[in-house]
Amino acid sequence: MAEVKLHGFWYSPFTFRVMWTLKLKDIPYQNIEEDRYNKSLELLQYNPVYKKTPVLVHNGKPLCESMLIVEYIDEIWPHNSLLPADPYERALARFWVKYADDVFSAGAACYLGNNGEEREKDIEKVWEHLMVVENQCLGDQKKFFGGDTINMVDLAFGSIVKFLLVVEDILEVKVLKDEKFPHLHSWYNNFKEVPVIKENLPEHEKIVAFLKFHREKRLASC
Amino acid sequence: MAEVKLHGFWYSPFTFRVMWTLKLKDIPYQNIEEDRYNKSLELLQYNPVYKKTPVLVHNGKPLCESMLIVEYIDEIWPHNSLLPADPYERALARFWVKYADDVFSAGAACYLGNNGEEREKDIEKVWEHLMVVENQCLGDQKKFFGGDTINMVDLAFGSIVKFLLVVEDILEVKVLKDEKFPHLHSWYNNFKEVPVIKENLPEHEKIVAFLKFHREKRLASC
Repeated sequence: MAEVKLHGFWYSPFTFRVMWTLKLKDIPYQNIEEDRYNKSLELLQYNPVYKKTPVLVHNGKPLCESMLIVEYIDEIWPHNSLLPADPYERALARFWVKYADDVFSAGAACYLGNNGEEREKDIEKVWEHLMVVENQCLGDQKKFFGGDTINMVDLAFGSIVKFLLVVEDILEVKVLKDEKFPHLHSWYNNFKEVPVIKENLPEHEKIVAFLKFHREKRLASC
Repeated sequence: MAEVKLHGFWYSPFTFRVMWTLKLKDIPYQNIEEDRYNKSLELLQYNPVYKKTPVLVHNGKPLCESMLIVEYIDEIWPHNSLLPADPYERALARFWVKYADDVFSAGAACYLGNNGEEREKDIEKVWEHLMVVENQCLGDQKKFFGGDTINMVDLAFGSIVKFLLVVEDILEVKVLKDEKFPHLHSWYNNFKEVPVIKENLPEHEKIVAFLKFHREKRLASC
């Protein structure tokens, strides 16, 4: 039995976070691809509260919630640390990690919404959130959120920005406008060039095609 | 200048969490009572993202989000620790702390909703969440979530259960039914008898009267 198992979806930003963390720390693990419409019995047992991926199983013990898993991995395998050493910086990092969930929720509303007049409002909501990140979190134009190396905030936002870029292509609208979010663009360009991220980012067109198909299926059944 | 300042609302479950943490660790602090309708300039500067209480200011540096503050305090002042020492137990504690937010959201929907037919559905939603806590988190009937002493999960849920008891009295409905949630009742009875909690829990009737007044004002303006 592998010591570490990851139950996830290959196209999920939340799975990316855990997968990247394991790769950044060079931790061998068994990947267990879950089927959204036919989840494994193990997954349902491991995450009885939300029944969601990702779930990390370490020595038989399951853990849920992507960023809590990232933090756990960082505590167990502290090399290439993803959390700031200073308690205040660590607390700020946790604040922005939490904020990344707000950005995701706004992006998910665009993805889940139909093509009607609500779309513009949904996009404006995403912009509001991204502007907070642009001005308040990335305002001093560091290479990464954590400074010179990536940390948990980069993983939290990197996965969400990737999702937003996928949503752009599905909806055929520009969400992450370069002129609106120059710091965010500059940061994402740095982020996606980190070798581990670059080598472990599922193919963009494949994610777009997969999520577009499921979005249309969902809208047709509404 | 005091080293530690807490900007909060005397009636807010989120402020309770930080106030209890400071009291449990015997940390002197300056309490700054905020006015919900006329927040201080400091608060708006300290929490520009959410503009919400509580905010802890430690040596001039502000921190937001109640449970992130609790965790920060625990890292800076590690005596009477509120986090499990074992990384796996710590991750589980963080999972339940996160879940407490879901319970609060369900309770807040009851509080914010009107008196119409949606009420029953709102209460059922709270029950669903409390049943998860009853069966999956408190199933083995420990004295506290953390075992023999209270930890961050107790603070997270204690504040929310207090809020639900207030909501019960405002709406004149029984939400936390004894027969439905025996473990939860038994735990809350232990929790509210902890001297620091008992001595630092604002008067129930006063919170009920205050929130009832504001709820009615809000509903009248809808």
